[in-house]
Amino acid sequence: MPLPLPVFDDILAAAARIAPHAQATPVLRSRTLDALAGCRLHFKAEPLQRGGAFKFRGACNAVWALPEAEAGNGVVTHSSGNHGAALALAASTRGIACHVVAPEGAVAAKLASIQRYGATLHRCAATIAAREQACAEVQRQTGATLVHPYTDFHVIAGQGTAALELFNGAGPLDALVAPVGGGGLLAGSAIAAAALAPDCRVHGAEPSGAADTARSLATGTRQPDFTPDTICDGLRGTLGEPNFRVLQAHAVEVSVVDDTDTIAAMRLIWQCLKLLVEPSSAIALAAVLAQRERFAGQRVGVILSGGNVDLDALPWSRA
Amino acid sequence: MPLPLPVFDDILAAAARIAPHAQATPVLRSRTLDALAGCRLHFKAEPLQRGGAFKFRGACNAVWALPEAEAGNGVVTHSSGNHGAALALAASTRGIACHVVAPEGAVAAKLASIQRYGATLHRCAATIAAREQACAEVQRQTGATLVHPYTDFHVIAGQGTAALELFNGAGPLDALVAPVGGGGLLAGSAIAAAALAPDCRVHGAEPSGAADTARSLATGTRQPDFTPDTICDGLRGTLGEPNFRVLQAHAVEVSVVDDTDTIAAMRLIWQCLKLLVEPSSAIALAAVLAQRERFAGQRVGVILSGGNVDLDALPWSRA
Repeated sequence: MPLPLPVFDDILAAAARIAPHAQATPVLRSRTLDALAGCRLHFKAEPLQRGGAFKFRGACNAVWALPEAEAGNGVVTHSSGNHGAALALAASTRGIACHVVAPEGAVAAKLASIQRYGATLHRCAATIAAREQACAEVQRQTGATLVHPYTDFHVIAGQGTAALELFNGAGPLDALVAPVGGGGLLAGSAIAAAALAPDCRVHGAEPSGAADTARSLATGTRQPDFTPDTICDGLRGTLGEPNFRVLQAHAVEVSVVDDTDTIAAMRLIWQCLKLLVEPSSAIALAAVLAQRERFAGQRVGVILSGGNVDLDALPWSRA
Repeated sequence: MPLPLPVFDDILAAAARIAPHAQATPVLRSRTLDALAGCRLHFKAEPLQRGGAFKFRGACNAVWALPEAEAGNGVVTHSSGNHGAALALAASTRGIACHVVAPEGAVAAKLASIQRYGATLHRCAATIAAREQACAEVQRQTGATLVHPYTDFHVIAGQGTAALELFNGAGPLDALVAPVGGGGLLAGSAIAAAALAPDCRVHGAEPSGAADTARSLATGTRQPDFTPDTICDGLRGTLGEPNFRVLQAHAVEVSVVDDTDTIAAMRLIWQCLKLLVEPSSAIALAAVLAQRERFAGQRVGVILSGGNVDLDALPWSRA
């Protein structure tokens, strides 16, 4: 049986559920970036979310949606970093245990956050299979509930609250751009946009080194077999099955972006917005800058998804 | 005749004058930093101000307070960077000319901003005398009005609007900490605090390599003769005379901070707040962290003054 898909009411329920714990992040603007892009950009500043990324929204919604009896056994997930830290933080708001399976190669700063927020860290090899196996093992031992980073019903609904706030704060938008890895944020954004602004086009931005979503939408079937090669460590996952159905249903388009353009956009955002964003966020601005004619003169919402960066390994110091 | 000192009504007038142009910046919080500091920190995020620093407040107030006839001849200032960029930006909002005299050694990113905002740049040697001479020359040639970076009446009043917003946004505070170079921000903050929260102590944070304010307050006379040696490029100026009188009148205390502590605080702010702050801002948090017992359990406002950083010369990559 296919996993159930959240609808707009589930996003509204998520917004109410996470309100006591999550941050209502500001929408930032920059005349300099508007001039560069040739459109009016409204940046949803999720690096200012708790845990430094939008991921807290979905994790918090999933944790607080658990029935009391199940919650007592804790939660478990596999994550390259931001979702793991977010789930750890969300679990701490409810006072329950959290286990995080993290693959080798994850960003050190993100792993440190996971442990600082009180979760138990389990390392594994950097393959999807190894992650899932390690997760299943933790579930067997503890009875913890799996909160998948992007296919979970409540995670998708929770991620949709970022777009909900953006539409409420920025007013009418012609287009909404969000990064896509597993598709939790993009699917949640598409559901919110369809309800709040049916004329607003929803775009995903995906690294060329992990462009399975673009290929999946182009071919009409999910393309899960690939080896990610991108600086966007938050976007190395495979598009989820329910996420795929949401993107198809809402005619979401996906732009493929090279890492060099993403790094340039990241530096621009740091300089102009004074906001630390990670490559996985900056890719959304890079997608806009690569298609100036497409967005010319429009009001464009951009979800800057997170800001968990290793300050000792900035991409422009590597040259 | 001593320069006139602004009072709280001048700050209110400034707030109204700059409202159409300036950004009402958010107040950021971090549980991690609260735990580290042992107090409740409320960060006024002036890197999100136009031009990337609080300086736009004072410059904008000064530009728009000019009578029409004088405004037509433009404005001129000397500045190591942020005030120059702010004045350039403020002049552009009124459509008048702006000249900026900048000393050798100023941060490249700040000089680039000054030119991007449309001002004419005049370079000079890195001494106070050379700056003042170059300024006087521009005034002779153009009739431009001098807008001093920190002794100007309207500049001080404008800088006070940051504290005004912080008190209005954060509620009651036990202490307010701001960096001090020439003393525009600190004097404006002290005037605002005295009117809005008479029980709130006002602290300045000053680099040990430019600690003329601390010495001036300790000795009771201004100590303008020193050679600044600090990474805090925005705090290398000499405490102004009117600024000195305001700090004395309001019993402002000044803490002296070493650059190593400032750099550590800067990195903490980047990591925890996801906000780019420059060393001249981070020093305020460093002052709090160095005096945990003094601020223990209190509600502390911290003005993060700006975020104009050279991304190719971050202090922790120099080791």
